[in-house]
Amino acid sequence: MTLKLFYSPNACSLASHIALEEAGADYELVLTSTRDGSVRKPEYLAINPKGRVPALQTERGVLTESPAILSWIAQAYPEARLAPLDDPFAFAEMQAFNGFLSSSMHIMFALHWRAARFVEGEDHLAAVKAHAPKALAEQFRLVEERLKDGRTWVNGEAYTVSDPYLLVFTRWLDENGLGDLDDYPNVKAHRAHVETRPAVRRALEQEGLS
Amino acid sequence: MTLKLFYSPNACSLASHIALEEAGADYELVLTSTRDGSVRKPEYLAINPKGRVPALQTERGVLTESPAILSWIAQAYPEARLAPLDDPFAFAEMQAFNGFLSSSMHIMFALHWRAARFVEGEDHLAAVKAHAPKALAEQFRLVEERLKDGRTWVNGEAYTVSDPYLLVFTRWLDENGLGDLDDYPNVKAHRAHVETRPAVRRALEQEGLS
Repeated sequence: MTLKLFYSPNACSLASHIALEEAGADYELVLTSTRDGSVRKPEYLAINPKGRVPALQTERGVLTESPAILSWIAQAYPEARLAPLDDPFAFAEMQAFNGFLSSSMHIMFALHWRAARFVEGEDHLAAVKAHAPKALAEQFRLVEERLKDGRTWVNGEAYTVSDPYLLVFTRWLDENGLGDLDDYPNVKAHRAHVETRPAVRRALEQEGLS
Repeated sequence: MTLKLFYSPNACSLASHIALEEAGADYELVLTSTRDGSVRKPEYLAINPKGRVPALQTERGVLTESPAILSWIAQAYPEARLAPLDDPFAFAEMQAFNGFLSSSMHIMFALHWRAARFVEGEDHLAAVKAHAPKALAEQFRLVEERLKDGRTWVNGEAYTVSDPYLLVFTRWLDENGLGDLDDYPNVKAHRAHVETRPAVRRALEQEGLS
């Protein structure tokens, strides 16, 4: 069966999209926009009751949550070498980084775009939204520190699914004026490295991004 | 080398603590309280720069983030059968559930206890804190729905690391008046099942909980 990736352009689903391209997987993209409310429609909630992207339909069923989808793609296409599959400790380190992106960094972007998840009331919403750049600065400093030993990729010498996942957030920071990439030279260099990869360029183009 | 688990009583580190007990691992507990500021002390930041628990020191280095630590314990002690290690799809489903707990449910408890991560200003802090019960209700409804097919454990017929991880949040909801467990009978039954396990009872007792 052809895999189906439910995605929204430039959402965190971009990481799973890139991983499928890297893996050479047989897959279809299904546009499910977070902007026009498609993620809250009954037909999509039947696929993912959480009403979020990404969701990946497989012959066994639907997978959700970026870190889980990314690790599954790496395991399902081992020849693409997208994760240290034979080393449980290195695999766990990769998962820890992906977990940090998902449960810490992504949340701080959500303060900016989805303040209503965290509070009610116009005045409070604006205050939550205004807090995002400060919280993001603290997190990007941690990532900058991790990349400081001159490593090309997040997890060391080998490219893994953590790299396109970090790319998503680096692009968001830069595009939305929530921080200045020049404050994080290693993060900026990482973005440039990731974006030279043919699979990454194909995925960006397919989503209408550059 | 003996593993060291840096934990705070009744924090989300309880899930990793239970998993180590279930695995029969050789480990030590290192009290690192989230309440007295121990997690922000330089000596702990040298172990985990993120200043959170849990952190698990292994002979290869330190692991962080509950979902990553839980999966590593399951992989490092395969005979304890704490995850579907031979089935990448089932493993990914387990990871998706753990990712949901980490990146969605835990965040809504953080609104209540750690509002300062999300906003500044007394008035705004109170509003963020007040939003937690509503957001948690939506998430516990999703978990209640998942448990509705009569399954004993989160991921089906077999107990996995997702079960003690859910237990942490069920206990938090109940203890802090952030919701009523009677609204979620399957979640309530799940808690009771998990708490009958000897490893769970040992871990609770070691943390001074009941």
